[in-house]
Amino acid sequence: MKAEIISIGTELLLGHIVNTNAAYLSRRLAELGIDLYFQTTVGDNPQRLTQTIRKALVRSDVVILTGGLGPTIDDITSESVANLISKPLVFDASVWRDIQKRFGSMGVKMPSGNKRQAMVPKGAICLRNNFGTAPALIVEYMDKVIICLPGPPREMEPLFEDQVASYLKKRFKSESIIVVRTIKIVGLPESFVNNIVRDLLKMPPPTTVGIYAKLREVHLVIMAKARSPRQCRRAISPIEKEIVSRLRNNIFGYDGDTLESIVGMMLLKKKLTISVAESCTGGLLSKRFTDVNGSSRYFMTGIVTYSNESKSSFLGVKRADIVRFGAVSNEVASQMASGIKYFACTDIGIGITGVAGPAGGSLRKPIGLVYIAIKTSKKCIAKEFRFSGSREDVRHQASQAALDMVRVNI
Amino acid sequence: MKAEIISIGTELLLGHIVNTNAAYLSRRLAELGIDLYFQTTVGDNPQRLTQTIRKALVRSDVVILTGGLGPTIDDITSESVANLISKPLVFDASVWRDIQKRFGSMGVKMPSGNKRQAMVPKGAICLRNNFGTAPALIVEYMDKVIICLPGPPREMEPLFEDQVASYLKKRFKSESIIVVRTIKIVGLPESFVNNIVRDLLKMPPPTTVGIYAKLREVHLVIMAKARSPRQCRRAISPIEKEIVSRLRNNIFGYDGDTLESIVGMMLLKKKLTISVAESCTGGLLSKRFTDVNGSSRYFMTGIVTYSNESKSSFLGVKRADIVRFGAVSNEVASQMASGIKYFACTDIGIGITGVAGPAGGSLRKPIGLVYIAIKTSKKCIAKEFRFSGSREDVRHQASQAALDMVRVNI
Repeated sequence: MKAEIISIGTELLLGHIVNTNAAYLSRRLAELGIDLYFQTTVGDNPQRLTQTIRKALVRSDVVILTGGLGPTIDDITSESVANLISKPLVFDASVWRDIQKRFGSMGVKMPSGNKRQAMVPKGAICLRNNFGTAPALIVEYMDKVIICLPGPPREMEPLFEDQVASYLKKRFKSESIIVVRTIKIVGLPESFVNNIVRDLLKMPPPTTVGIYAKLREVHLVIMAKARSPRQCRRAISPIEKEIVSRLRNNIFGYDGDTLESIVGMMLLKKKLTISVAESCTGGLLSKRFTDVNGSSRYFMTGIVTYSNESKSSFLGVKRADIVRFGAVSNEVASQMASGIKYFACTDIGIGITGVAGPAGGSLRKPIGLVYIAIKTSKKCIAKEFRFSGSREDVRHQASQAALDMVRVNI
Repeated sequence: MKAEIISIGTELLLGHIVNTNAAYLSRRLAELGIDLYFQTTVGDNPQRLTQTIRKALVRSDVVILTGGLGPTIDDITSESVANLISKPLVFDASVWRDIQKRFGSMGVKMPSGNKRQAMVPKGAICLRNNFGTAPALIVEYMDKVIICLPGPPREMEPLFEDQVASYLKKRFKSESIIVVRTIKIVGLPESFVNNIVRDLLKMPPPTTVGIYAKLREVHLVIMAKARSPRQCRRAISPIEKEIVSRLRNNIFGYDGDTLESIVGMMLLKKKLTISVAESCTGGLLSKRFTDVNGSSRYFMTGIVTYSNESKSSFLGVKRADIVRFGAVSNEVASQMASGIKYFACTDIGIGITGVAGPAGGSLRKPIGLVYIAIKTSKKCIAKEFRFSGSREDVRHQASQAALDMVRVNI
C-alpha cells in the first residue's frame, strides 16, 4: 500500500506558510502501515495540479490532497478532481445544510461564495467537517482513492482522525503496520546522545532508530514494521530498554509527553503546587505550564515582573540587591523564586531572570545569560545558563531548563 | 527562470520533522524573482531521488536540494548528483581542511564518517559552511544548475543568504523581480474579507492579490512582478490604497508587523504603560507582549491568576463576586483589569478570564466562552467572546482579541 501527499496552495510555494499538514499526515500514514515515498506541493493552478495528481495516481494507491477546498475562486481542488475522473460537479444538499447550519450557529450572514463548497464531484463520499465549512471528500477511482482534505490543520486533523483513518484501515487491509516509539531526552546535546547510541542508529529495517534534535531536547525514535502491534512492540522493547539503560535520568518522557505535561504529572502525584516569577521569559513558562489541560490543579500563579519596580513590589526582591548584583543575577533569581513561593502560598516557586536579546546585552551580562532558581520547602537552588540563538531561542531554552530543574528537584 | 525545491530525508516522509526549509527557500526565491512551481520531498533512497532530480531538471532551470549531505551512509545527495551528471566523486582537500578545522575548534575527536563529506562531484563549486561540516555544492550541468544545501536550517540559511543568493543573481540576470506587500487584518472572518475584496482577488498576473486566513487574522498579499522594485511598488500602490479604503480600521499592520508589535508601538508613541491579568490564556498574552524586543519600555507586569484565591489576593477581585457571577464573567474580568492596573501602577490594565477547554465547560459557561476587559484612566470596557477550536486555538484567539481591544481603545 503506497500513498502520496499533495499539498495545494500558492501560499506554500511563496513560503508564506510552513507545510505542517504534510508532516502530520506522514506521521499518521506511517502509523497505519502505509508507505509514503513522495510529498509534493503545487500552487492553485488547475493544469499543474491535474498533472501532479495524475502522476501520483500512477505510482500510488492513495493520493491525499490538502487545501483548495475553500469558498474562493482560487480553490480548485474539487473541480480539478472532477475533471480528472471525468465526472461532473453536483450540488450536495446535505453538505449545503451543514454549511448553512455552521453559519447559523456563528450568528453570521453567509457570504454567497460558500455555496461553491456544496458542489462536489459526482459519486464522492462527503465527510462532515465540524470545524469549518469545507467538507472533506473521498473519491474512489478504479482501484485508487483520492482523498481531499481542507488546508487549515484545525479542520484537517479531526477529519483525518475521526473519519479518514478508519476508512483507510477498512479499505486497505495492510499486511504490516508500523509502531513508533519516541524516547524524549533533556539536558544533553544531540552530539552526545548521538555518540551514546551510535551503534543503534545503524540498525537496518524493519526496526530502526532515528535521532532528532530540538532546542534543548533530543528525540530518539524507534520504528518497527511487522504484522501486528504485538510483534512491533516485541521488536521495540529490547531496544527501548537498552536506550533507557544508557540515558536513564536524562529521559523525561515518551511519545506524546511534553516536559510540561510530565512535570505537571509529577506535581499532581506528589500533591505539590507551583508558582512562577518570570522576567526574560515574559510569560512563556506560565504559558507552557498552563498549556496542559488540568494544570489548574497545581499551577496557581505566574507573575511576569518585567520592570525592576515590579520585581520589588510584587515579589519583595530587595531594591538594594537589584542595584548591587544587577537584575540579571543569581541573587535576584533566588529572591524571585522565594518571593513568588511566599506570596502565592505554593510548595514550589520558580524565578527566572536573564538577557533574551537581541538588544540589552553587555560584556558582563551578555545576551543568552539566564539565571534560574527553584525554591522548595527544603532548599533554594540557583543556576547560571548561557544560551545561544535568537530571542525566541533563548526564551525557549530558558523555559526548557526551568521545567527540567523542577523535574530533577522535586 | 524556473526553480524547483527537492527536500531529502526519510525523517520528512515519516513526519518526524516539519519542512521549514521549503518555506524559507520559497520565500527567498520569490524575492529574487525566480518562479517556483513545485516542492517535492523524497526519502533517502538513491533511485527515487535520482528519478525526482531528473524530472525536475526537465521542467526547471535551477534545482535546489536540501539534506542528505551528512557523514552517514544514509546521506546520498552527493553520490546521486554525481551519478546523474556522470561525473566521479573526487576528494576535495580544501573541504577536508575546513572539516578538520571545525572539529579542532570544537575540541572534539572527529568520527571517521566525516571524511565522506569531502567527497564531491568532480567540477562542483564547494561553498564553505561556517555552521557545520557539510559543504554546500553548486553543480552546473549543461544550461541547468543543481544546488545542494545541508538540511539543518541553521546551516542552510546562512549558506543561501551569503553565497547562493548572489550566485543565482549573477548567473540568472532576471529580467524581473517580485515585490510582496502583505496587509494584515484583524476582527473580520476570512469570508467577509473575501467578499469585500472579491474583485481584486481575480486580477491576472503580473500583479495579483491572495487571501490567507489565520486564527482571528486575515492577510491580503499583493504580489507584483516587474523590471525594478520601483515598478513593482508602482503596481502595488493603487491596489493597496483601494484595500485600505475598503477595510480601513480592521487593518492593523503590514508585512513583518505582528499585532503585538503594532500595539507595542502605539503604547510607546502615546507613552502609555500596560499590565496584564490572565486566567485562561495562562501567560500567553504576556508572552506575546514580551515577544517584542524592547517591550520592557511599556510592558510592566503580567499576572497569571489561575486559582480563584490568587485572583483575590493578587488582584483584589471580590470573593463574593467570584461566587455570585462565577470566575468566568464580565464582572471578574473587569475587576482583574482594574486590579492589575492599580497594583502594577500602569496606564492600562487588561483582564482575561474564560474556559479554554477541553474540560471544564458547562451549559452556562461552555468551552470557548471568554471575557476580556480593558481598564484605562477613562473607561473600563468588557466584552464577551465565544471562540471555537482546541484549547490552543481558544487561547490564541483570546490573546488576539485582547490585543485588538487595546489597539482600538487607546
